[in-house]
Amino acid sequence: MTLEMHPQRWGDPAAAETLPENVHALVDSIVGTRPTPAVDDVALPPGGLHDEALDALRAAVGTDAISTDDDARRLRTRGKSTPDLLQARRGDLADAPDAVVRPRTHEDVAQVLRWATDHRVAVVPFGGGTCVTGGLAARRDGYAGLVSLDLVRLDSLLSVDQVSRTAVLQAGMRGPAAEAALAEHGLTLGHFPQSFEFASVGGFAATRSSGQASAGFGRFDDMVVGLRVATPIGDLELGSAPANAAGPDLREVVLGSEGSFGVITEVTVRVRPVAQETTYEAWSFPSFDAGADAMRHVVQAGLRPTVLRLSDETETMVNLASQKDIGGEGVTGCLMVVGFEGADVAAPRAAVTAVLTDSGGIPLGEERGRAWLAGRFHAPYLRDSLLDVGVLVETLETATFWSNRQRLYDAVRTALQAELGEKALVLCHVSHVYETGCSLYFTVAAPQAEEPLAQWRAAKAAASDAMIESGATITHHHAVGTDHRPWLAREIGPVGVAMLRGIKSSVDPAGVLNPGVMVP
Amino acid sequence: MTLEMHPQRWGDPAAAETLPENVHALVDSIVGTRPTPAVDDVALPPGGLHDEALDALRAAVGTDAISTDDDARRLRTRGKSTPDLLQARRGDLADAPDAVVRPRTHEDVAQVLRWATDHRVAVVPFGGGTCVTGGLAARRDGYAGLVSLDLVRLDSLLSVDQVSRTAVLQAGMRGPAAEAALAEHGLTLGHFPQSFEFASVGGFAATRSSGQASAGFGRFDDMVVGLRVATPIGDLELGSAPANAAGPDLREVVLGSEGSFGVITEVTVRVRPVAQETTYEAWSFPSFDAGADAMRHVVQAGLRPTVLRLSDETETMVNLASQKDIGGEGVTGCLMVVGFEGADVAAPRAAVTAVLTDSGGIPLGEERGRAWLAGRFHAPYLRDSLLDVGVLVETLETATFWSNRQRLYDAVRTALQAELGEKALVLCHVSHVYETGCSLYFTVAAPQAEEPLAQWRAAKAAASDAMIESGATITHHHAVGTDHRPWLAREIGPVGVAMLRGIKSSVDPAGVLNPGVMVP
Repeated sequence: MTLEMHPQRWGDPAAAETLPENVHALVDSIVGTRPTPAVDDVALPPGGLHDEALDALRAAVGTDAISTDDDARRLRTRGKSTPDLLQARRGDLADAPDAVVRPRTHEDVAQVLRWATDHRVAVVPFGGGTCVTGGLAARRDGYAGLVSLDLVRLDSLLSVDQVSRTAVLQAGMRGPAAEAALAEHGLTLGHFPQSFEFASVGGFAATRSSGQASAGFGRFDDMVVGLRVATPIGDLELGSAPANAAGPDLREVVLGSEGSFGVITEVTVRVRPVAQETTYEAWSFPSFDAGADAMRHVVQAGLRPTVLRLSDETETMVNLASQKDIGGEGVTGCLMVVGFEGADVAAPRAAVTAVLTDSGGIPLGEERGRAWLAGRFHAPYLRDSLLDVGVLVETLETATFWSNRQRLYDAVRTALQAELGEKALVLCHVSHVYETGCSLYFTVAAPQAEEPLAQWRAAKAAASDAMIESGATITHHHAVGTDHRPWLAREIGPVGVAMLRGIKSSVDPAGVLNPGVMVP
Repeated sequence: MTLEMHPQRWGDPAAAETLPENVHALVDSIVGTRPTPAVDDVALPPGGLHDEALDALRAAVGTDAISTDDDARRLRTRGKSTPDLLQARRGDLADAPDAVVRPRTHEDVAQVLRWATDHRVAVVPFGGGTCVTGGLAARRDGYAGLVSLDLVRLDSLLSVDQVSRTAVLQAGMRGPAAEAALAEHGLTLGHFPQSFEFASVGGFAATRSSGQASAGFGRFDDMVVGLRVATPIGDLELGSAPANAAGPDLREVVLGSEGSFGVITEVTVRVRPVAQETTYEAWSFPSFDAGADAMRHVVQAGLRPTVLRLSDETETMVNLASQKDIGGEGVTGCLMVVGFEGADVAAPRAAVTAVLTDSGGIPLGEERGRAWLAGRFHAPYLRDSLLDVGVLVETLETATFWSNRQRLYDAVRTALQAELGEKALVLCHVSHVYETGCSLYFTVAAPQAEEPLAQWRAAKAAASDAMIESGATITHHHAVGTDHRPWLAREIGPVGVAMLRGIKSSVDPAGVLNPGVMVP
């Protein structure tokens, strides 16, 4: 697997399967399909940085750290949202950076920020390029240029503390590399978002990522105990203790800052021993409501299976169609996947089984659970295949408290269906649970209109309005970027916005860090 | 029990016991004692607020919300650290507020902040007055006056959400009132710091309090899912979901802000059902090191007893002397208290027992565990009794990662013993544990010097230097106040300080909120 993704598609094209025939047939029958290939010939805008500025950058961090060639720039243009892909597929690379800088050290990163401040160049920190909220499309107006600061060379496990169970990871490590390096010490991070194969440790931190095993391992922000950050005004090192009362927790200010306050170069994370036993199983519930209540009972009983996710009726139907080796026989209602990993999974499994049975669940055995595990990083490839046949596919997600779940679900679903039309499929699952609430993750598939970008933006705006009007969050784990910025302002209000701007102007007085991203 | 504490002592004098004879004898034999009564006749400085400003305040929030009498002012002068008590005992009330304002509503609080901004009056938010780090001694220079904003009238449970298991508490509710109100719904917060009987919900949030049951219930900041805050530039309402990726978590900016960024008026907390079963027991370990390792094994195995605390050798010796109904027979080494509360405590107790036994622990049964539970809010009264006999008593606390625990313990202990002399008793316990580390809580008892305030400040500075030089935090749960401010600056560095100042100036441009507190 390569570290770099195709500029118009998700992931490694060699790893992409063709669209399974039964999924194609299903989508064709409901949504409709037609061949919709991407444009081949994609011209980049010329790089706009003056030679003088480029020479100064070369002097600061070395010539070999800087690329201005078309391939390097093309691969760091925007992220992997469906709007990003739609633009790339039609040949629009207007947001390409003028240059790509690949620093080798924390000090190099600090040098780049000093250079950017001196030359008034916008800097877009780049980890794995998996962003789906426009976080890599910074504003260029008013800047002398824009560089992509690719952290790919900061790729080492710096230290392991077996007693404290912590490890220091450089920010550019991708998910698989981090897990492989930790596994040599018998440890795991346990963070497996859908973007795992390409996304970086620094990106996990900067965007408050949450992985598929969040029920057992927690969100990425729960795992972070320390951070090293380069800012235009100097270095910031945080993490004197697991927790403290030494003022506001500034780690929680850096987490979610999306490159707007500084560039994260090292993350100290809590780690755990590699699991000795692993079991995945599936359950069926008569309705989404019944399944969600069962999840709530599990987590409010203090039980923490490693993975706990529930598909609604529509997603269950589509998932079964896409699991071609299983087929759809015998399952109606809603599918739940429950995973246990640890030194001994029998006791926690028995406790969860008791609660799920009491809550009306019917066990379906391990096969469907393992099928989910095997395919869990595959959905983004499926999206490319569907875009190829004229189907608009995208995801969006939110979270709320348990008592507000049904209202939020209805509001977002209604908004999406109203905007995208009767033929649109709207799927939903719960994949992150807390004692007090849960996430809701929506996937839509709709016939592409003439202007699919405008079509999606209208649907996204309607869904986002519904989230805010329901008192929920604009994003549980996809972060803010540029796409969610107007709704973030509504979510945190003018005083919250003032706080973010106060931090921004204090650490980045020239405003060169990811301008226009996150901070409303 | 009254809500207001004695101006020179902890808590309700009616609840204070006299010093137990065996403790007196023990302390006398090691440290030495002599009668050292407090001054009776305490004159207050005259109130300094102009009539015009007071009239405007009366117009804003009503005459009955404002007190300028000596009793009201005396009871809101500083907090309850030993330096605070030493100053009060010798008749120094120089930090008395000019007036005490007791708003009835959130809107009243907002009015007070507008008034303070207009009249350039410093505002010190006041909950229970239990602060031990100088957080109630704001700077007066450059202000037209200083008022204590006492939230005592914001004392209601506003709502309960049984499905989400959350409750909205007004900030002025004291610990016992909050628990009593929740108990009517079958719920508990589970937050029991030593200050529980007097401290307020708003104070818990503003100082990142951590209670004695933090192993099972988490710190107070773990319990907070929403906040309502009045700031000089407007209201801030946070808490759209249990967790999200919508930028930095601004709840974590308000938590620990100690009244410097706004006044917390409502806190939405996670609650749990009242425990059906409760068991407390004691264990003995051959050394502090062995006991701490056992604690680490418990928490790293994913086990969460409700209470888990371990005294070092010296504290164990003194504790047994003070548990006069138990006596010291048969226990050497280090005493651990383990508490279990829940629907069913047998299974978790068995799991913890297995780990503690494997780690070399010897069970001592339930009697000593229950004795700890019965006396757990009593220590501050004991401090007053010891100050009465010329013994300087104070506590300080820190936290670090497990691998750094022994180094931190040695460094702080050595610093305290060197400053306070050979006759000083230095006790320590671990009372808050995490997967990656723990707190260390020190208690000292030393012969009072001629200038006990200067004597303590030197010892405190030496201990604080040792914490920072050991890479630990200046405070695990006592907060920053004015006492820890210089060390906070060293802990978070100049970029961290710039962030705090950036937030402060954005939400409190006139600088009227608790000036000189927390923000370096």
